[in-house]
Amino acid sequence: MVTVSALGSSLLEVLAAEERKRILSLCQKISLRPGEAVATDTVGPIVYLVEAGAFIERIYYGARAVPIVHVTGPGDLLQANRLFVSSSLYRTELRAIHIENNSLLAWPAADFLAALRTTPEGLLYLCSWSNQQIQTSRVQLYETVAHSAYYRLVNLLASLANRYGYRNSNGSTVLLPLKLTVKDISECINVSRETGSSLFNKLRRRGVVGAGKFIKVELSKLSEYAATLE
Amino acid sequence: MVTVSALGSSLLEVLAAEERKRILSLCQKISLRPGEAVATDTVGPIVYLVEAGAFIERIYYGARAVPIVHVTGPGDLLQANRLFVSSSLYRTELRAIHIENNSLLAWPAADFLAALRTTPEGLLYLCSWSNQQIQTSRVQLYETVAHSAYYRLVNLLASLANRYGYRNSNGSTVLLPLKLTVKDISECINVSRETGSSLFNKLRRRGVVGAGKFIKVELSKLSEYAATLE
Repeated sequence: MVTVSALGSSLLEVLAAEERKRILSLCQKISLRPGEAVATDTVGPIVYLVEAGAFIERIYYGARAVPIVHVTGPGDLLQANRLFVSSSLYRTELRAIHIENNSLLAWPAADFLAALRTTPEGLLYLCSWSNQQIQTSRVQLYETVAHSAYYRLVNLLASLANRYGYRNSNGSTVLLPLKLTVKDISECINVSRETGSSLFNKLRRRGVVGAGKFIKVELSKLSEYAATLE
Repeated sequence: MVTVSALGSSLLEVLAAEERKRILSLCQKISLRPGEAVATDTVGPIVYLVEAGAFIERIYYGARAVPIVHVTGPGDLLQANRLFVSSSLYRTELRAIHIENNSLLAWPAADFLAALRTTPEGLLYLCSWSNQQIQTSRVQLYETVAHSAYYRLVNLLASLANRYGYRNSNGSTVLLPLKLTVKDISECINVSRETGSSLFNKLRRRGVVGAGKFIKVELSKLSEYAATLE
């Protein structure tokens, strides 16, 4: 896996106090229950910033029911590509998945861009965010063509556990506080639900993933295991 | 295929005369023969702008010899992700492929960013360029998981013919003035050389692609054919 340097701060943190105040005055806050989808029947394109929780975004780029899927968390921007690329040929779905608080800040794309374009810090942040996204999606393409689905599943679980997981007292069992179905996970690694389910059961039988309502991951076993996979 | 709105202008065109002059004074011009690779044993990260011709870029994101490949032409930026993302874990190869003139403008990444960050137009352009790249690589991922390799090959040839092709007098036969091997084309559509070669021969037998030193494409037949594929 390629290490992509973290942005280290969120958009709001890079802005000066006055600019932050101005851009915040233009946004609408949306709170969502776990499993709830964001209404997408809005008038124009909207840009989102994840304030709390976790979200799953599905983007359909063509006629086929094969989404490109991302899980995002606090500080991530969503649909910021709508600021520049006009394409009405694809649709997106956005759903809250954290079992605790999920909230988004939402801006009409035009307002968001107008507020940012007067601040070099904001534009630089957007450039750097976009560049990280290019990297992420190319790495996803690389892993899809270069690695097995099993490898991608193990890596996905490890990265979700590291980013969102709650550790138990022994420090190794990690509970994922996310409402994710086998279908969601299968789509994240670009396989059918059937394939995803069978790979998931393989991890269960090996004791790397625990049973229960939420996914439990044995992080140390998972990391050990990841190193053996192609 | 998703239509991504073209940027419409290149970085140099969006800059005011004085800023354009300043950024041009910082670059080095590199001219290359067809088939010649850009020396990548430089001291620090370099950002390129394609001035003329066409280039093929291979990026290796991991240990496996599976590159992510792009063909780029005039106005495209190359390795601009190096401005923000620090990752020494992957290597890239950049080769000139146009049979006429190939030239690049090259900047040390730090100089390029320093020159751009003082111009809102430059930063906005970089944001918009990056956003288009996100779109392009996600569409590439979508096509890889949702469509057949044959579909991807036909689409690749059509887009290369439209962007770089020379039309003959009947207006339908298009010569691609590019030094591209079957291996290059196979890598563009993420299949093995053997698979790429067999798909290519299938198109030859159908009379959609002509024989010869350079690839000749029957554009009207190709477009008709593309519509029948999944």
